Amino acid sequence: MLGVCYYPEHWPEENWTRDAARMAEIGIRFVRVAEFAWSRLEPSRDDFRWDWLDRAIETLGAAGLKVVMSTPTATPPKWLIDARPEILPFDADGRPRRFGSRRHYCFSSPAWLEETRRICEAVADRYGENAHVAGWQLCNEYGCHDTVLSYAAHCRPAFQEWLRHRYETIETLNGEWGTVFWSKEYADFAEIDLPNQMVTEPNPAHSLDFRRFSSDAIVAYNKLQAEIVRARSPARFVSHNFMGYFDQFDHYKVSADLDVATWDSYPLGFTDERMGLPAETRVRWARSGHPDVAAFHHDLYRGMTRGGRWWVMEQQPGPVNWAPHNPAPADGMVRLWTWEALAHGAEVVSYFRWRQAPFAQEQMHAGLNLPDGTPDVGSREAAQVGRELAETGFAPTPDVPAPVALVFDYEAAWAIGVQPQGAEFDYQHLVRAFYTALRRLGLDVDILPPDADLSGYALVCVPTLPIADGPAIECLHGVTGDLVIGPRSGSRTPSHRIPDSLPPGPLRDLIDIRITRVESLDPAMVEKLRWHDRVYPVSLWLEHVEGPLEPVARLSNGKGGAYRSGDVHYLSFWPDEQFLIDYFDSLLVARGFEAVRLPDALRLRRGGGLTFAFNRAAAPIAAPAPDGADFVLGGRQVAPYGLSAWRQR
Amino acid sequence: MLGVCYYPEHWPEENWTRDAARMAEIGIRFVRVAEFAWSRLEPSRDDFRWDWLDRAIETLGAAGLKVVMSTPTATPPKWLIDARPEILPFDADGRPRRFGSRRHYCFSSPAWLEETRRICEAVADRYGENAHVAGWQLCNEYGCHDTVLSYAAHCRPAFQEWLRHRYETIETLNGEWGTVFWSKEYADFAEIDLPNQMVTEPNPAHSLDFRRFSSDAIVAYNKLQAEIVRARSPARFVSHNFMGYFDQFDHYKVSADLDVATWDSYPLGFTDERMGLPAETRVRWARSGHPDVAAFHHDLYRGMTRGGRWWVMEQQPGPVNWAPHNPAPADGMVRLWTWEALAHGAEVVSYFRWRQAPFAQEQMHAGLNLPDGTPDVGSREAAQVGRELAETGFAPTPDVPAPVALVFDYEAAWAIGVQPQGAEFDYQHLVRAFYTALRRLGLDVDILPPDADLSGYALVCVPTLPIADGPAIECLHGVTGDLVIGPRSGSRTPSHRIPDSLPPGPLRDLIDIRITRVESLDPAMVEKLRWHDRVYPVSLWLEHVEGPLEPVARLSNGKGGAYRSGDVHYLSFWPDEQFLIDYFDSLLVARGFEAVRLPDALRLRRGGGLTFAFNRAAAPIAAPAPDGADFVLGGRQVAPYGLSAWRQR
Amino acid sequence: MLGVCYYPEHWPEENWTRDAARMAEIGIRFVRVAEFAWSRLEPSRDDFRWDWLDRAIETLGAAGLKVVMSTPTATPPKWLIDARPEILPFDADGRPRRFGSRRHYCFSSPAWLEETRRICEAVADRYGENAHVAGWQLCNEYGCHDTVLSYAAHCRPAFQEWLRHRYETIETLNGEWGTVFWSKEYADFAEIDLPNQMVTEPNPAHSLDFRRFSSDAIVAYNKLQAEIVRARSPARFVSHNFMGYFDQFDHYKVSADLDVATWDSYPLGFTDERMGLPAETRVRWARSGHPDVAAFHHDLYRGMTRGGRWWVMEQQPGPVNWAPHNPAPADGMVRLWTWEALAHGAEVVSYFRWRQAPFAQEQMHAGLNLPDGTPDVGSREAAQVGRELAETGFAPTPDVPAPVALVFDYEAAWAIGVQPQGAEFDYQHLVRAFYTALRRLGLDVDILPPDADLSGYALVCVPTLPIADGPAIECLHGVTGDLVIGPRSGSRTPSHRIPDSLPPGPLRDLIDIRITRVESLDPAMVEKLRWHDRVYPVSLWLEHVEGPLEPVARLSNGKGGAYRSGDVHYLSFWPDEQFLIDYFDSLLVARGFEAVRLPDALRLRRGGGLTFAFNRAAAPIAAPAPDGADFVLGGRQVAPYGLSAWRQR
Repeated sequence: MLGVCYYPEHWPEENWTRDAARMAEIGIRFVRVAEFAWSRLEPSRDDFRWDWLDRAIETLGAAGLKVVMSTPTATPPKWLIDARPEILPFDADGRPRRFGSRRHYCFSSPAWLEETRRICEAVADRYGENAHVAGWQLCNEYGCHDTVLSYAAHCRPAFQEWLRHRYETIETLNGEWGTVFWSKEYADFAEIDLPNQMVTEPNPAHSLDFRRFSSDAIVAYNKLQAEIVRARSPARFVSHNFMGYFDQFDHYKVSADLDVATWDSYPLGFTDERMGLPAETRVRWARSGHPDVAAFHHDLYRGMTRGGRWWVMEQQPGPVNWAPHNPAPADGMVRLWTWEALAHGAEVVSYFRWRQAPFAQEQMHAGLNLPDGTPDVGSREAAQVGRELAETGFAPTPDVPAPVALVFDYEAAWAIGVQPQGAEFDYQHLVRAFYTALRRLGLDVDILPPDADLSGYALVCVPTLPIADGPAIECLHGVTGDLVIGPRSGSRTPSHRIPDSLPPGPLRDLIDIRITRVESLDPAMVEKLRWHDRVYPVSLWLEHVEGPLEPVARLSNGKGGAYRSGDVHYLSFWPDEQFLIDYFDSLLVARGFEAVRLPDALRLRRGGGLTFAFNRAAAPIAAPAPDGADFVLGGRQVAPYGLSAWRQR
Repeated sequence: MLGVCYYPEHWPEENWTRDAARMAEIGIRFVRVAEFAWSRLEPSRDDFRWDWLDRAIETLGAAGLKVVMSTPTATPPKWLIDARPEILPFDADGRPRRFGSRRHYCFSSPAWLEETRRICEAVADRYGENAHVAGWQLCNEYGCHDTVLSYAAHCRPAFQEWLRHRYETIETLNGEWGTVFWSKEYADFAEIDLPNQMVTEPNPAHSLDFRRFSSDAIVAYNKLQAEIVRARSPARFVSHNFMGYFDQFDHYKVSADLDVATWDSYPLGFTDERMGLPAETRVRWARSGHPDVAAFHHDLYRGMTRGGRWWVMEQQPGPVNWAPHNPAPADGMVRLWTWEALAHGAEVVSYFRWRQAPFAQEQMHAGLNLPDGTPDVGSREAAQVGRELAETGFAPTPDVPAPVALVFDYEAAWAIGVQPQGAEFDYQHLVRAFYTALRRLGLDVDILPPDADLSGYALVCVPTLPIADGPAIECLHGVTGDLVIGPRSGSRTPSHRIPDSLPPGPLRDLIDIRITRVESLDPAMVEKLRWHDRVYPVSLWLEHVEGPLEPVARLSNGKGGAYRSGDVHYLSFWPDEQFLIDYFDSLLVARGFEAVRLPDALRLRRGGGLTFAFNRAAAPIAAPAPDGADFVLGGRQVAPYGLSAWRQR
Repeated sequence: MLGVCYYPEHWPEENWTRDAARMAEIGIRFVRVAEFAWSRLEPSRDDFRWDWLDRAIETLGAAGLKVVMSTPTATPPKWLIDARPEILPFDADGRPRRFGSRRHYCFSSPAWLEETRRICEAVADRYGENAHVAGWQLCNEYGCHDTVLSYAAHCRPAFQEWLRHRYETIETLNGEWGTVFWSKEYADFAEIDLPNQMVTEPNPAHSLDFRRFSSDAIVAYNKLQAEIVRARSPARFVSHNFMGYFDQFDHYKVSADLDVATWDSYPLGFTDERMGLPAETRVRWARSGHPDVAAFHHDLYRGMTRGGRWWVMEQQPGPVNWAPHNPAPADGMVRLWTWEALAHGAEVVSYFRWRQAPFAQEQMHAGLNLPDGTPDVGSREAAQVGRELAETGFAPTPDVPAPVALVFDYEAAWAIGVQPQGAEFDYQHLVRAFYTALRRLGLDVDILPPDADLSGYALVCVPTLPIADGPAIECLHGVTGDLVIGPRSGSRTPSHRIPDSLPPGPLRDLIDIRITRVESLDPAMVEKLRWHDRVYPVSLWLEHVEGPLEPVARLSNGKGGAYRSGDVHYLSFWPDEQFLIDYFDSLLVARGFEAVRLPDALRLRRGGGLTFAFNRAAAPIAAPAPDGADFVLGGRQVAPYGLSAWRQR
């Protein structure tokens, strides 16, 4: 189904009816509203103005549209900040981050928690049982603009309390952190500072715990809102819109209090800014987005809630305003992105936004319609999907059985982040290499937390899992297919110490190796890995392995590079995509899977009884469909920037 | 005429007479003094010491030199800052910028305005009617070292008052800025903060108005000084020395209160640091300066005051100290730069400085003379110009009729700056591409504000004019030749909103197009533009155009790239120099101009009844002079790093 | 002899005996302890806990090991900082640098000087006469983490007092600094601020004096500790461990109060991060360290104390944790580095650290042993050196006569640093070019301060000496061999002014030239220097020379590039390595030295009656040993990452 983000407060009321009618006309069913509307809902304290929003919702509902109502906490208004400036977050340099844009609040501010409760109760009281309201979005993009970590004065006692809860005694903390190093020993939790403004880096355990504390503050904040809304809005779903390539808090834990996980999909902006790609690759996918940029997140957010319900809450409809460069999507890409999300199981794909705003910070962000109200490219392509949905009767299936699982862990990102050891070692980049390799083999991938049930998959990939604690270990033992574990896994205890038994620590029960040394390499420093008859470049990361196992691949200096013990595999280096493609292929072939080696611009996905092929090239590509396939969308030649879909047999 | 900057306070008094004699001897007529001399003129409050400066001026006057006296406000002394620290400016991080170098004052500080009035009155009272004083320089290089924007506490109410004056009601401001976006609505002007220290970018209208406010503060500051000096120094000119590639305040508005606009010309430093050139190009012009670096500013500052009077107040005489790299000018370049300024119409070219200081921040800045007093290269080349001026009897003519006008607008630079949309979109770089193309065709160029009379020119270029308001529109309608308008023109209202009619907004009366989408491109992402038989690379910026006009040039994807309606042309992309050369050439040929395609190191300029050719290559280049031309300087082969000049017929 | 750094407080006491036994077993003789142990020695004020350290020292002593005891001032504990926060240093932005890592103290803090005295007296009282204590290390790595310069409130009066002592009257300071420039004149020392937070750069004399003041504060701080320890620990040596490529304070002056200079040698980290090498070169030496990275410092620190006693206090034993990339040393390199230090005259090479810590900031820093206690590569290679030392009976000789002296001056680094004039002009990089050229010729090099006795050397090199004052001039006059002086020498007075006679100022008595102009060049701007039949690229720096001398080498533009007057040579440009090799070679040949042109991976060093050859290549290289040489280590083919040594005849 399709949706859209709409800001009735931005437009004259006389437009609303026509807007709603046109939405319905192109196949839109859901409309998100009001996530930034606080100053219109409460222009001064307790002076609530519901009338305009009542009418807006009524207008939308009258057109047959369902409303996703929001709590407006991402933008506390000026009168509130002036009255309670202790709401503001502080940066790592100790300076306040002030009113004037958005997200100017600190998750740990007691004043802010009070005000959050007040506004959420008011909004939920008003709209909780509104017949047109189908569900809720809580706040907007937690953590956006680097707002997870805040260093306000009130954060210090909160962090100390969190530490007291975790370690119980200061002796335990001193022992776990190893504060004897550099005479950092504390006599009391009350002595512990936030880990900023130090002469050089803090103890990594100190930093890691501050990240955990900050993540937990968001979990608690989300839960606070969820409980308020749930109590007042029975039978409606509760959701939050997460971001892309953002791992500063634990999205799994936040999602435990949600019914639907949603995310905001901006493939071109992410490709330009967040994937760490070289210029040549950035340019290659500048108008289509990297082939895995959206799919990765679809698979990630599908695994986020227990029920597997997920949406794209904001879908890029044209050029955006926030990346270093903002080209236009190639014609067809808005349709492709929409179908791709549906194929991956999205319940709803909701465009951001209905109409481009002619004012303020996002005036260069395209909408489905131009600022003057005329339909833009996005509108036409959305309408095409609307028609195609009607014609095909397609219904997304979140529970397609995937042959492969990829383990994604937020704590892994933090553990790597607080002590990268090599300047280019980035958790997301490593994960993406694994994901791309799997997708180049035409595979559907489930992305799961480390404590998920991993049985039943032919292949389970763990790009890296520095901290592998009890539940994760148990789940890894439950793998029934091949288990491929990447470098640095098991290299840290929960307190960010090297395990007594050396890495991979508790994973040694799975594969009997012992990492005695690691090397981080300049990207210009390239070793050669030989595996079977092939040679692969290796850079960035290398481990020295000891133990009884013979390596299955060797570096040109004779050192081992990959190890295998039964169905458990350990890669003691940063693998490049081509190695991973070949290696995974060999494992799957051994299990009787038929290899599909896709061109780099083509991707497959099964869903709703169909197999989809998505083509991000400017030329047609033949679909790897069986002879006599029954094409429901497109045909055997997948159109440039287009897609084909055929019935599964 | 020639001038020089002199600091009698830096040298023993016994040197003054000899210095003055030598100045006169090499042809210098004007001497600027005292712009940094406050601590010597008033070593403690109200303890004025005029005697030394009286004697210095008398010594210069006795040698037949005229003095340009200065107000010393660029360097308030220590005792003043200690007594009134509220004079200091604040940076965007909220920190004071302290005493110890120069320009440590905030234009909006009430204390500073009082002190400015006091010292200016004192200095003007003393020297206003001094017979040797020919004119005044007010302060020094407004805005140097990033001092236009200040975020001191006293700036906030001043900015609020400025906003109140502009918008009258807070409802108007909320509407114009679109503060409904992200709940930024204000209940009163008194709530509005300075646009710094925010979580993410401020509303661009907020930023743009703060730039306007800051520019207006400089206009008011300059006017304050000008009025004080004028009232006390009848029949003397009032000037200020502007900088190169500096657009943070509106120089036209400041110049409205000046008699003479002057600027400080450092071709090598600007080429190395401010032009955004690739290394190869920087190196190419490292010892001559880019061929358009000085000429562009000559043409800009010639258009600054109503009467067209302008000087080069500081002319680079050798290596400077402030660029990342500071090579020496090639032999001959000081002479070339001097003649170039004169050819463009400068009344006076004044060298900075007479003698290199052996101490303090600028000790590595060359002078005409070495620190030990012996003449340096610059002195010899200046003397040569002095002789040549005497021999040729050359007199500069500021009012040479130019066939081409280029519109330069400070607000355009700010509007682009607050929302560049593409990382490399720089207003000055775009303007320079237009200017260079015109100059490669051998044309004289007038640079004018958008509200100037643009009639009578064969060609008027508007590289971009995002905010095209009433007076500008009227002037553009008055163009009688070809009018070439660049991308983003008309794309914003004065409140930095997208026009209701979409870009180019009010310019649609000139050419019937409608920009429905823009793209900013990675420099590595290059499209091809086909025009006639030629193909040009296009990067950085592309617009999608709708309307009834057929494009005159097309991109390889079929989209239009250039549009024409009668004599009005619109370029919907960032044009490269070669396209502009070819395109302008075709327009001029159609109007009967004869094309001159100059080698990249040669430039022409008409002035004082002569045509000049300037050669920045290390080898001679043939002058495009008519047969039998009467050479007044040089000959048919323009010498390396040299010039030729022949009489116009 | 060999040593090791050991942290008994990091390990269970039951391990100590076994650790000590294993140390002794592999040939270790010295153990440094306790430099970060304050929080264990005094967990709260005056509550001293000596017992554990008493036992640790006793355990080490019982195993036959000697102890280097430390003052623990690099890490003041939390209770102390909470009680006296005025100890903290402040950064240039005016913000405190807080507790949480190390070196969180300001050298000028009166509170800190009190506390330093207190803890040093306590520690020295306790261990000064301990029979196992052989000597002392004072504090740890002065200045590490950019802690030389601090901008705390208490620094201001201290700096003012320092200035009063230097200049006596404010008039003298005003005159020397040239404060008349930009009206910076002071009426009293009490007006002078620290040189931070200014609008643009401070007066370079102001900055230079602040660096001198800051260096002197460290000298005084070290002297304070040295006196306390010496008075309580007779017949023990006093040392400090300096760093590599660190020149922010005057190590010669600090060393005047030490018996032994030690330094911390991390060849791989320095090669990756501090040498300014291009990627290709970084990669070339990524696993061996640049061939001159350690040797340069050995030669530097050998010249540090009057008696020439020096150690490597911390020797890299494997990958480190702090560089952008941290590869493993090639097998053999730990042995090579150890022997190289011994060959250069080190009394002791002490590894950092005995056992890798599994916790805190340096958990990724390798030790001789793994965190689980098993021996790592470093341990095996150290043991090999231990055996070889025993077998060969090698004893280091610090006083090997070297044919060449290189003058290294800390003030030179500061003078260049406060006014580089060219973005790439780096003092250490220039020095290294000279050093490498000398070493490529197989020469032993003494590195000396400018006021050392320079007679007796065949060649004395002064890469640059901007401030050449009385004692230095006298020493340069005492040179009896060739004296090669690099650019910028003599270009500044002690008050950072250009000399009245122009550069090279007082050096004009040595060679009659006069520098009238300097140029700093973009690295992409390359001139050609012709010397004899060869042509060399010249970039970065060029000087224009006047005077009676004919240049011995010329640039392609005809300007001179090298000058000679008798045995004094002046290079008026930034020389590349190859020019220096050829030029030095020609001088030495003329003096009857036999040229040895070494491959770039080979280096020689004489010591202990042997000539050593060190090979940093992956392939063997023939040693330039005489026929019939008596090899004590290795053989004629120097092994990859290995060494050979033969008896001198």
